[in-house]
Amino acid sequence: MSKILFQHINEFVSMEGQEFEEIISYFTRRDVDKKELLMHPGDTVLHDHFVLSGCLQMYFIDMEGVKHTVQFALQGWWLADYLALQTKKPTEFFIQAVKKTAILSISSTKRDELFKAFPKLESYFRTVYQIAYGSYQTRMKYILSYSKEEIYFKFRDAFPDFVNSIPQYLIANYLGLSPEYISKLRRKRIS
Amino acid sequence: MSKILFQHINEFVSMEGQEFEEIISYFTRRDVDKKELLMHPGDTVLHDHFVLSGCLQMYFIDMEGVKHTVQFALQGWWLADYLALQTKKPTEFFIQAVKKTAILSISSTKRDELFKAFPKLESYFRTVYQIAYGSYQTRMKYILSYSKEEIYFKFRDAFPDFVNSIPQYLIANYLGLSPEYISKLRRKRIS
Repeated sequence: MSKILFQHINEFVSMEGQEFEEIISYFTRRDVDKKELLMHPGDTVLHDHFVLSGCLQMYFIDMEGVKHTVQFALQGWWLADYLALQTKKPTEFFIQAVKKTAILSISSTKRDELFKAFPKLESYFRTVYQIAYGSYQTRMKYILSYSKEEIYFKFRDAFPDFVNSIPQYLIANYLGLSPEYISKLRRKRIS
Repeated sequence: MSKILFQHINEFVSMEGQEFEEIISYFTRRDVDKKELLMHPGDTVLHDHFVLSGCLQMYFIDMEGVKHTVQFALQGWWLADYLALQTKKPTEFFIQAVKKTAILSISSTKRDELFKAFPKLESYFRTVYQIAYGSYQTRMKYILSYSKEEIYFKFRDAFPDFVNSIPQYLIANYLGLSPEYISKLRRKRIS
């Protein structure tokens, strides 16, 4: 199943199968159970995770004990606390599997070794992070432009698989809407 | 003044002065007037801009004609529409100088040439984008955790130079507060 990473790398950087076999030895393949936590606030040994199947969620819990979703990662997406990964300071986020999820994980130390051995992977990760950074700029545009209701419909139209494969209460949490409100919106559109 | 870029690169990647003299030839140095636009919606030939002095603002105008600030860039920061820079699709954003600003700009084509000639700069940009991406994750945490009033005070405490050097109405626009409301908050804190 790790061929998903091989294909993803080849979208941005040309790579032979033989090279990839060496590269994959830097990663740990993990099967994560539904609700299993991969990262807790306070962790300093951090990993970058690539999703082979399933879905990861990054969230935090505020001072009132309310959970807020910052980001999801589906198949072919990377997920980490990227500031903490760089600064080596403790993270303030959780990363959890939304459902049974298969991932490839790499620690920041291993990733540094990987970059030394395969410098062209700097180019791959540079592109991945540039796209992710740009996606956040666009996400800010959505947040500033539209009502939560409009964002839900735009989100549903742009990512139908996502909306169909993630529990409704999690999409609601991500968009800052109550699950009941999303049900109401769905009924409104159907009728 | 381009030594600011030299110092910034050396924070992440070791580089000699002689190498930098070659590198700098890939960039265009520009002095931008206050209010001058560097990018318009619809532009496809895009540049990544490094701020030597002054301040850039990235914004868009919504369907009702209201201007929304997505991001600022002060000395030592990079700014572009990073999704459009990657996809080569037309941007939906403006980039404008808030005050008299000196920048180093590089087109995506020139940047590709630069990466071929100096592969270690992939590592520099990979780190810059990773940090910027991580900063957006943290920014989402602020947006989801705090009221606009709390965000203003946290922002002011974290970036005092920023708050003192940018016109109040632009900070208000960035934080989604009216300038009058920020004046009121300032008075409240002083009294």
